Amino acid sequence: MKSRKIVIVGGVAGGATAAARLRRLNEGAHIVLLERGEHISFANCGLPYYIGGAIEKREKLLVQTVEGMSRRFHLDIRTLSEVLRINRSEKTVSIQNLLSGEVYDESYDTLILSPGAKPIVPPIPGLADARTVFTLRNIPDTDKIKAYVAEAKPKRAVVVGGGFIGLEMAENLHQLGIHVSLVELSAQVMEAMDVEMAAILQQHLRAKGVALYLSDGLKAVEEGGSRLVLQSGTELAADMLVMAVGVQPESSLAKEAGLALGSRNSIRVNEYLQTSDPHIYAVGDAIEVQDWVSGQACFVPLAWPANRQGRIVADTISGKPTPYKGTLGTAIAKVFDLTAAVTGNTEKVLQKRGVPYLTAHIHPNSHAGYYPGAKPLALKLLFSPEDGMLFGAQAVGEKGADKRIDVLATAIKGGLNVWDLAELELAYAPPFSSAKDPVNMLGYVAQNMLEGEVDTIQWHQIRDLAAAGAFVLDVREKKELEGGFIEGAVHIPLDQLRDRLAELPAAETIYIYCHAGLRGYLASRILQEWGFAVKNLDGGYKTYSVACQ
Amino acid sequence: MKSRKIVIVGGVAGGATAAARLRRLNEGAHIVLLERGEHISFANCGLPYYIGGAIEKREKLLVQTVEGMSRRFHLDIRTLSEVLRINRSEKTVSIQNLLSGEVYDESYDTLILSPGAKPIVPPIPGLADARTVFTLRNIPDTDKIKAYVAEAKPKRAVVVGGGFIGLEMAENLHQLGIHVSLVELSAQVMEAMDVEMAAILQQHLRAKGVALYLSDGLKAVEEGGSRLVLQSGTELAADMLVMAVGVQPESSLAKEAGLALGSRNSIRVNEYLQTSDPHIYAVGDAIEVQDWVSGQACFVPLAWPANRQGRIVADTISGKPTPYKGTLGTAIAKVFDLTAAVTGNTEKVLQKRGVPYLTAHIHPNSHAGYYPGAKPLALKLLFSPEDGMLFGAQAVGEKGADKRIDVLATAIKGGLNVWDLAELELAYAPPFSSAKDPVNMLGYVAQNMLEGEVDTIQWHQIRDLAAAGAFVLDVREKKELEGGFIEGAVHIPLDQLRDRLAELPAAETIYIYCHAGLRGYLASRILQEWGFAVKNLDGGYKTYSVACQ
Ligand SMILES: Cc1cc2nc3c(=O)[nH]c(=O)nc-3n(C[C@H](O)[C@H](O)[C@H](O)COP(=O)(O)OP(=O)(O)OC[C@H]3O[C@@H](n4cnc5c(N)ncnc54)[C@H](O)[C@@H]3O)c2cc1C
Ligand SMILES: Cc1cc2nc3c(=O)[nH]c(=O)nc-3n(C[C@H](O)[C@H](O)[C@H](O)COP(=O)(O)OP(=O)(O)OC[C@H]3O[C@@H](n4cnc5c(N)ncnc54)[C@H](O)[C@@H]3O)c2cc1C
Ligand SMILES: CC(C)(COP(=O)(O)OP(=O)(O)OC[C@H]1O[C@@H](n2cnc3c(N)ncnc32)[C@H](O)[C@@H]1OP(=O)(O)O)[C@@H](O)C(=O)NCCC(=O)NCCS
Ligand SMILES: CC(C)(COP(=O)(O)OP(=O)(O)OC[C@H]1O[C@@H](n2cnc3c(N)ncnc32)[C@H](O)[C@@H]1OP(=O)(O)O)[C@@H](O)C(=O)NCCC(=O)NCCS
Repeated sequence: MKSRKIVIVGGVAGGATAAARLRRLNEGAHIVLLERGEHISFANCGLPYYIGGAIEKREKLLVQTVEGMSRRFHLDIRTLSEVLRINRSEKTVSIQNLLSGEVYDESYDTLILSPGAKPIVPPIPGLADARTVFTLRNIPDTDKIKAYVAEAKPKRAVVVGGGFIGLEMAENLHQLGIHVSLVELSAQVMEAMDVEMAAILQQHLRAKGVALYLSDGLKAVEEGGSRLVLQSGTELAADMLVMAVGVQPESSLAKEAGLALGSRNSIRVNEYLQTSDPHIYAVGDAIEVQDWVSGQACFVPLAWPANRQGRIVADTISGKPTPYKGTLGTAIAKVFDLTAAVTGNTEKVLQKRGVPYLTAHIHPNSHAGYYPGAKPLALKLLFSPEDGMLFGAQAVGEKGADKRIDVLATAIKGGLNVWDLAELELAYAPPFSSAKDPVNMLGYVAQNMLEGEVDTIQWHQIRDLAAAGAFVLDVREKKELEGGFIEGAVHIPLDQLRDRLAELPAAETIYIYCHAGLRGYLASRILQEWGFAVKNLDGGYKTYSVACQ
Repeated sequence: MKSRKIVIVGGVAGGATAAARLRRLNEGAHIVLLERGEHISFANCGLPYYIGGAIEKREKLLVQTVEGMSRRFHLDIRTLSEVLRINRSEKTVSIQNLLSGEVYDESYDTLILSPGAKPIVPPIPGLADARTVFTLRNIPDTDKIKAYVAEAKPKRAVVVGGGFIGLEMAENLHQLGIHVSLVELSAQVMEAMDVEMAAILQQHLRAKGVALYLSDGLKAVEEGGSRLVLQSGTELAADMLVMAVGVQPESSLAKEAGLALGSRNSIRVNEYLQTSDPHIYAVGDAIEVQDWVSGQACFVPLAWPANRQGRIVADTISGKPTPYKGTLGTAIAKVFDLTAAVTGNTEKVLQKRGVPYLTAHIHPNSHAGYYPGAKPLALKLLFSPEDGMLFGAQAVGEKGADKRIDVLATAIKGGLNVWDLAELELAYAPPFSSAKDPVNMLGYVAQNMLEGEVDTIQWHQIRDLAAAGAFVLDVREKKELEGGFIEGAVHIPLDQLRDRLAELPAAETIYIYCHAGLRGYLASRILQEWGFAVKNLDGGYKTYSVACQ
């Protein structure tokens, strides 16, 4: 092993991590790290925040320098060195020195590909010619945006794409005093979440002054970028345009070398991250992975998987074979004052897969309501109606969303079910949580559904039911109706319910709702015990009203 | 079932929760909630923060009122009603109405005891006579302290006991501008943690101006409370004294009724929370529980167990038998700007149990260092040297301690090991974490120890080794030595190590240290690969220096 030569293509998350771990396990190996760009090991994820100014110093983005990393890990690092070709039969790569133009071959015993993914730029008329169009992947991209903002002092930016990077760019440009319009082809921002959870973000974005154009796409770029025409016909004036419609694997090298490709042209690997050529491994944004929940092939360009894969591929190559067990897709973003976080499968994905599922929505406080600073937290859980196994979870709120999603991601990887969630003994003191943590509460709510203590309906069902003349019962206090109600609902506050049973229909289903679901549940229990047929609106008026906006 | 009569003793965490859940499952049952005090369902855990002023309104402490709770849950709630006796053969309790003095009997089909625990007040000379001595359990206690502070404007408070409540009181009195001295019999505050983790809190308390008297106890109270004499002979002038030396189960009722008792006189129950009398259940602070990790009997007076037990006892009584699987002891406290959190067994407990264990200490940032606001977080993991199973974890830091302990508590309850920690796919974006979350990092560090990639020594071993002439190697940068070093250590910065191997002894063990353990680990790997015998100081100089203060 010690004399083996390992060549790595790509010097950032996956590549640099693999190089560092390889050195720790093999002091004697020759490790070559090839990077097309000028920088290795930079903080991709920090780029939007450097643009917005939260990260003040550019050098903070450089987690490691070429010099520092070469010295510490005794690596042969070559930046501005693009790998043009993999010559599998010779076991060499052809490298172009981007400074001198020189092309040369370098041999390898083992090759690791970590070339990442690049922004998708769709073939939209006028886009290629516009001078004020930006994408964001690396430090030169960032420098370009930073310089343009400083020099041209744009007043109106249009961000196309409402995913993680689009939302982060919207926030950071807004932070600079630029008016931001966000254009998104789908009916919601943050495709990684379900629509009613994303709706909370949309409400917040609008409140912050971001103009949202949902279910709409960029059709044409005119006047060199200063006029944008959307598919709806809407025209937007823009001083700058950020294209953030997603990324695609940088798999052309692999493809040209005849390696097997998978979904969305990502590089196909086995569980040891080995490509169809046993001497070539691949990691990071460029590869196809298995969805941890469904086992289906997918493409998840995130930093945790890239780092994890970089480390384990080094282990495997060093004689400690370590499988990659799949990607859960845990992800998080700061969206102005909110945090949006997700793990596992969404409802959309479960529907597409045709898997039976149940959902629970709750709106607890981030910590005990009587201690200052508690903020509402919207949580959604997806689980199996058969055995209560967890499929996924989503959280949106000002505080504590990250913690609950991390606990739920741990629970999913640990194979826990909804009963186990109720058993989780989480840390409680008033500044941090409640004696029943929101995650416990999700467990309780889900468990009640599975044990038949309550039957629920979803936000998208109740309006139609009400319109069709179903008996809808609002159990909130009178003054809460001022904030809105479901048309046609009968109003009996929870605490009067036992005295007013005679007002309820004995022979038809009663659809109950309250503010967040808790009082509706209490009402359901009372009525169910009295023999009525009832269903409670999951997540209450809170989920309903934001989702139906 | 519906006609059954259930009597509950104690109307706060365990009792009120049981009552609410019982009603939800049994609309027709007669449920009597008996409470000695004036209030039910109050926020015990919020009391210190009301005293300190963070919680401004007293009514915020009342999570439920008698009126509100009676109406909502159709309960027969009797406050100022003390249960004097359980008459097991008659299946009645004798109750005294504390307003009228009247005593009467009330029958039960099932009795639930949730009487809680009361502050221990040791028989210290002068204590009983002092007028400025306080304990804190309920709202009247809180009112007394609040009123005394407002009227007497005390300048110097002495808090005896450095556990959760003692620390919270120290902070909250300090918050009011009162000088606080904290007296603790043991050598550390926060017995629930290990000494080197508690040392971080001690450093912080001192920096905030709290006078700490460790390894010292209160011996006598003189001059009606204004002079306190410690066991060391130290005398403290005090305008008020808060006794927070721990709590003991309120088990006299149970004891007098001949129910079996367990450790520290707590009420003994089986896994269904049934006492030695099958018609009597008990929950909360008053009962003995099994330690989740060791299975040993213990007494853990915390709100999560009380709430959980309250709910499941209601299930069991309602025909859904649900076992209580033990208590992990997850706990947390805000200590001024720091958070201290713990789950599972400490090193002290493992030592006492005689269980072989390994420990790992790390000092990561709470989130990516390049994003503003990241704070250092000290984490400790205890795990099995045999199979990597998790025994416990501790965290101290300004940010993110609660999240990591919750993830680790979930991992422990999920039966995960150190390899699984590395696999946890936690939510990463720069404001929230790092691409390798601190919990992943704990997994990596522990895994390296188990796989023989590194051998470690602990902070309490290296000083003696250095003193005894062992070869200690400091691999930090030169300027770091200004902040302190281990006497006698040889200094070779990590990045020069490969060039200076000749300066190292080939035939003896080299004890390496750096700032936090990471560079020491890198040095260990290099030297180990070159054939040297090495051990790395776990947690680095950071753990060492605070622990050896
Ligand atoms: C703006 C932005 C924000 C992000 N925020 C987050 C976040 O908050 N959380 C999160 O989890 N993820 C985030 N990501 C994604 C994360 O950065 C990636 O998942 C991760 O960097 C992938 O690692 P990788 O090694 O696969 O690819 P990269 O880190 O992209 O590295 C690939 C490198 O390979 C080089 N390369 C490619 N082809 C060649 C070649 N032929 N020859 C030589 N070199 C080549 C490229 O120049 C590139 O530097 C963000 C990404 C961006 C762009
Ligand atoms: C100041 C303070 C801060 C705390 N902070 C935290 C924290 O941050 N996190 C945490 O997890 N835990 C905390 N706790 C502990 C938590 O409050 C308890 O674990 C929890 O309340 C226990 O619930 P319980 O039902 O067993 O007892 P309690 O909530 O104490 O209720 C017992 C009730 O029974 C009544 N009673 C007793 N005997 C009789 C009788 N014979 N007849 C009638 N009534 C009777 C008592 O008056 C009392 O109101 C704190 C406690 C205190 C005092
Ligand atoms: C900088 C970079 C090369 C570092 O790689 P690395 O050395 O593997 O990672 P870290 O510096 O986090 O150190 C982790 C190692 O230190 C060890 N370690 C960490 N703290 C330790 C401690 N206190 N004691 C002992 N060991 C410790 C870990 O076990 C791990 O070693 P292992 O993999 O051999 O088990 C790589 O992370 C990188 O390029 N990052 C920037 C790019 C990126 O990730 N972008 C996407 C996110 S913005
Ligand atoms: C106030 C108190 C009586 C409430 O008890 P409770 O009704 O069991 O608890 P909550 O109000 O938190 O509600 C939890 C119930 O609502 C359900 N619920 C919560 N949110 C819901 C939602 N959005 N939709 C449907 N159901 C919901 C839960 O499933 C649970 O019901 P279950 O136990 O039947 O499964 C009790 O918690 C108490 O006395 N607390 C104060 C004392 C205390 O705990 N002190 C120590 C800490 S300071």
